[in-house]
Amino acid sequence: MTAQGAEQVIGSLRNILGDRIVTSMSVREHHSRDISRFPPVLPDAVVFPRTEEEVVQIVRLCAEHRVPVVPVGATSSLDGHIIPVRGGITINMREMNQIREIRPEDMLAVVEPGVTRKQLNTALRDTGLTFPIDPGADASIGGMAATRASGTTAVRYGTMRENVMALRVVTPDGTVIWTGSRAKKSSTGYDLTHLYVGSEGTLGIITEVTVRLHPIPEKVSSAICTFPDVKSAVEAVIAAVQYGIPVARVEFLDETAIGAVNSYSKLNLKVAPTLFFEFTGTPAWAAEQAQIAEEITASCGGTGFQWSTDADERNRLWQARHDLLWAARALQPGFDIYTGDVCVPISRLAESIVAAREDMDASHLKGVVLGHVGDGNYHTLYLIDPNKPEDYAEAERLADRLVERALAVGGTASGEHGLGLGKLKFMRKEHGAAVDIMKRIKQALDPLGIMNPGKMGQEG
Amino acid sequence: MTAQGAEQVIGSLRNILGDRIVTSMSVREHHSRDISRFPPVLPDAVVFPRTEEEVVQIVRLCAEHRVPVVPVGATSSLDGHIIPVRGGITINMREMNQIREIRPEDMLAVVEPGVTRKQLNTALRDTGLTFPIDPGADASIGGMAATRASGTTAVRYGTMRENVMALRVVTPDGTVIWTGSRAKKSSTGYDLTHLYVGSEGTLGIITEVTVRLHPIPEKVSSAICTFPDVKSAVEAVIAAVQYGIPVARVEFLDETAIGAVNSYSKLNLKVAPTLFFEFTGTPAWAAEQAQIAEEITASCGGTGFQWSTDADERNRLWQARHDLLWAARALQPGFDIYTGDVCVPISRLAESIVAAREDMDASHLKGVVLGHVGDGNYHTLYLIDPNKPEDYAEAERLADRLVERALAVGGTASGEHGLGLGKLKFMRKEHGAAVDIMKRIKQALDPLGIMNPGKMGQEG
Repeated sequence: MTAQGAEQVIGSLRNILGDRIVTSMSVREHHSRDISRFPPVLPDAVVFPRTEEEVVQIVRLCAEHRVPVVPVGATSSLDGHIIPVRGGITINMREMNQIREIRPEDMLAVVEPGVTRKQLNTALRDTGLTFPIDPGADASIGGMAATRASGTTAVRYGTMRENVMALRVVTPDGTVIWTGSRAKKSSTGYDLTHLYVGSEGTLGIITEVTVRLHPIPEKVSSAICTFPDVKSAVEAVIAAVQYGIPVARVEFLDETAIGAVNSYSKLNLKVAPTLFFEFTGTPAWAAEQAQIAEEITASCGGTGFQWSTDADERNRLWQARHDLLWAARALQPGFDIYTGDVCVPISRLAESIVAAREDMDASHLKGVVLGHVGDGNYHTLYLIDPNKPEDYAEAERLADRLVERALAVGGTASGEHGLGLGKLKFMRKEHGAAVDIMKRIKQALDPLGIMNPGKMGQEG
Repeated sequence: MTAQGAEQVIGSLRNILGDRIVTSMSVREHHSRDISRFPPVLPDAVVFPRTEEEVVQIVRLCAEHRVPVVPVGATSSLDGHIIPVRGGITINMREMNQIREIRPEDMLAVVEPGVTRKQLNTALRDTGLTFPIDPGADASIGGMAATRASGTTAVRYGTMRENVMALRVVTPDGTVIWTGSRAKKSSTGYDLTHLYVGSEGTLGIITEVTVRLHPIPEKVSSAICTFPDVKSAVEAVIAAVQYGIPVARVEFLDETAIGAVNSYSKLNLKVAPTLFFEFTGTPAWAAEQAQIAEEITASCGGTGFQWSTDADERNRLWQARHDLLWAARALQPGFDIYTGDVCVPISRLAESIVAAREDMDASHLKGVVLGHVGDGNYHTLYLIDPNKPEDYAEAERLADRLVERALAVGGTASGEHGLGLGKLKFMRKEHGAAVDIMKRIKQALDPLGIMNPGKMGQEG
């Protein structure tokens, strides 16, 4: 970090941004950490641009003085992505929060990066359309694009990978480019949209996102079903997807997770490996999907299939699922959560979850296993005493074992949380010599290495 | 081209490949051209590797001697992609045609690049799964990945962009890398899979493709409907997609196209702007989709909606659609076809098609307009006398006007045929300063410039 350079940049930016460049300790501290285990690092200043032109000016000054630049959205990423490990200027995009265009006929919306997913869906209220990608937190759409976010609906709608059509990006030398188009497909040129989606702020700063919208289904129904073991639950999911049922969501909760949910959300669910389904479509088609799913789950050993079209009951169930993080936390009040995240080929999902559970049972840490099982993506939540470094170390050991097993069966080190600082160490193991190609791209597009340094494009 | 270098490479390759390096004039001529207007250029030799290791050896020799390398699949690309404009070695991948793995539970297949889509679907026969991407020709899957191919089913299944999960690639220095994984989603590292998909052989040579498979629908039905004008036909498509009907295909044919089809395929369709639909699902759901589509088309002025679940009738109709190229050609026997290809935001599709038709009517060339209208992708087929250079020039002028209009409304210069040599000239207009980013990537990944030179990554 060039402290002197940062001072010069801060001085120049005051003239441009006025009180939207902040160097107070409280704001710098807020931008020094996330919920991960990584030690906080203070940025030299935090800026709040309102226009793309301001972003250009910020980046040009930082390039001139070789000062690191770290873009952040709603700061809800989980694995150290936004920690400015080499100091510099953190660009908080929250004031670039205008919805620029909604085009119902083209089923797309054009938003500034600070627009959150809930904000967009509120604005879509009268269009019959929705932006369905749901990572849980009310993340910013720029941040979701930068981290290739997904969540419970990815089995039906894909991730940000499938739902970003076009971007505007300020490159590390302060040039504005656009990628993609408003056409649904294209065969012209290298696919830069997908290169920037998931690049975690290491190649440029996203200043506009064009996202796909989807029709709000006429009918939404849900179902819940319990299984004698993990394997039969996963087999039911495989059979349902192979059959072609376009499930909107299908979530797995292990017995410990169900116990936590029962206690936290005052439910009375049977304590067993459980699938939560959501079906959407016309009323007849949503009902038919549920009926086929009931037959399939029964043939896989599922019992107690309960289907409901009642919105209140459905909301109560899904709210319980969404509150699982808090429910797990309540298992040991005062403890923190350490999260594991991998994605495996679905044929290897049952054995992966079983192994994760066995590891947990053999450890002194409590925890739960849950999964977006239609995608082969699952999470572990380990409860750790914030005052015990050995708890952190044990959780990291267990989460790393998830990754090692996932990579051994052709999976990936992160299904949706991203690389951040936590998964850099697995890059070579997962991607082999392709890591050298990634480094060459990083070097070619950010030759000064100022964009979110110490993250993707380097090795851990 | 370094003629001396090529000779040395050819000499060395004979030791490795034996009679699978061919320098006969007939084979070189076959690899010197496609159906486009671009002048043929002979490769110095054509090689037919059988293994990835052979590809590595070929590329290493070419890199050492700075000899261009042009990979080709089934040679069904349309716009000069495979013409070795600077000579060198053409690598024909047809003998790398093994299906390495079919994993029904993970709904994926792993194939060598020379496997064709029909070959794969034959191998899938007993799995209940299909590889649905259908560009018309029985293209190789490696070539389809390299050109980001799509076709009539893209409205339902996406393009190769959405259906390639992972690749193995020999980079221009002869390193083997893999991209992606067998997990359905991932948040680790730059998205190299999407960078190589659609890169038209300019960044490396694809030696293995992992593709997504999809369930074969229980029921397939089709429908046909005529409209008073283009606008009402397109409005019906927009309404159907906004409603959330997952149409498997929806194709537009203009009056001239219907006339050609009637004459060539001995049909008796009403001569009017027409939509061909295909619906899939359970029997009840496919029927419901057709019923909703009938209501929607009627409300947009459509008449004569004919729905059929009869496989013979459906096949006859879709065969007629697939034979449209030949039907158009038969309008003026002995003439060639010059193809236009753009994709626009669907809200601008009607005006775009109307303008294309008006241009055609004002020209001395005959032709037809057809479209994969659910995507906003449409084509023009211009009939040209192969002995009249002025016909070529006029067709190019008309096709270029399509592109200019598409770009003016936020569309793209090519929906699915790709850049090749024909669309290079539009790169700067479509992508602006992003072209410089593409050039930097090309330079970083192929510093010697040996991979399919004179194509993507350069400007026309």
